[in-house]
Amino acid sequence: MGTEIERKFLVDHNKWDKVNKPKGNVYKQGYILNEEKRTVRIRVTDTSAYITLKGAAEGISRSEFEYEIPKANGEQILKEFATTSLEKTRYNINYAGHLWEVDVFEGANQGLIVAEIELDKEDEAFEKPDWVAEEVSYDSRYTNALLSVKPYTTW
Amino acid sequence: MGTEIERKFLVDHNKWDKVNKPKGNVYKQGYILNEEKRTVRIRVTDTSAYITLKGAAEGISRSEFEYEIPKANGEQILKEFATTSLEKTRYNINYAGHLWEVDVFEGANQGLIVAEIELDKEDEAFEKPDWVAEEVSYDSRYTNALLSVKPYTTW
Repeated sequence: MGTEIERKFLVDHNKWDKVNKPKGNVYKQGYILNEEKRTVRIRVTDTSAYITLKGAAEGISRSEFEYEIPKANGEQILKEFATTSLEKTRYNINYAGHLWEVDVFEGANQGLIVAEIELDKEDEAFEKPDWVAEEVSYDSRYTNALLSVKPYTTW
Repeated sequence: MGTEIERKFLVDHNKWDKVNKPKGNVYKQGYILNEEKRTVRIRVTDTSAYITLKGAAEGISRSEFEYEIPKANGEQILKEFATTSLEKTRYNINYAGHLWEVDVFEGANQGLIVAEIELDKEDEAFEKPDWVAEEVSYDSRYTNALLSVKPYTTW
């Protein structure tokens, strides 16, 4: 727990459609606090739930604290405490020694597919699968926190 | 986890001074979100830390979700995410089959001592120790969330 270093890319839909994918996991997530420099997020997955605090981004780094909680609690918190929310299906893809997390957004963010890679240091090298397209790491519109407020289909 | 039912009383300082007390625990707590109907609190004790969400009060009841987290995380979160904070020493006193939590506030809330009892149902009967004085269960100024914003010495 501490610092999250992450790069984020758009996904080429045509190439992604042809990928042999593992089963995806549905993520429902809501924001309890949604400020530029502080977010508190509740995430409910198929099997569990998490409460996550993220601090101010400095480039591609930000502080992050995440705790697993019982799924039933997560569902209640999502309903009672979140002011904005979104839904997506996550696919975990291992490629050339790195984990890619690909999020296929639903609802008001339908049409958006984003791939993220978490790094141990900012200048870490990695190979990109051919379905990885334009980098959007520095575009805050693509943060899940902002997508829950101003969804992709409204851009 | 679910509903917290709690009654809150002022403490008679003279009588409290004469009580044979156990060792108190120092609590440092801060508010990450501090609204009337939703609070997110971080509490750091001598040995651990907790993140706690509380919902809207309905009389003496409110929803509560609390999770223990590593103390080092708690200290970092307190520093980085809390916008208001307070400090107090808590004494746990067992009396007539109930636990009384007595908070002796410090800093800007110095001079305030509050005793709380948690109940299983709203109309549960209990005996009061002689140092328990006026009830303040319905006075929101005495919530820790508001004491962190408008401390006792400023009233």
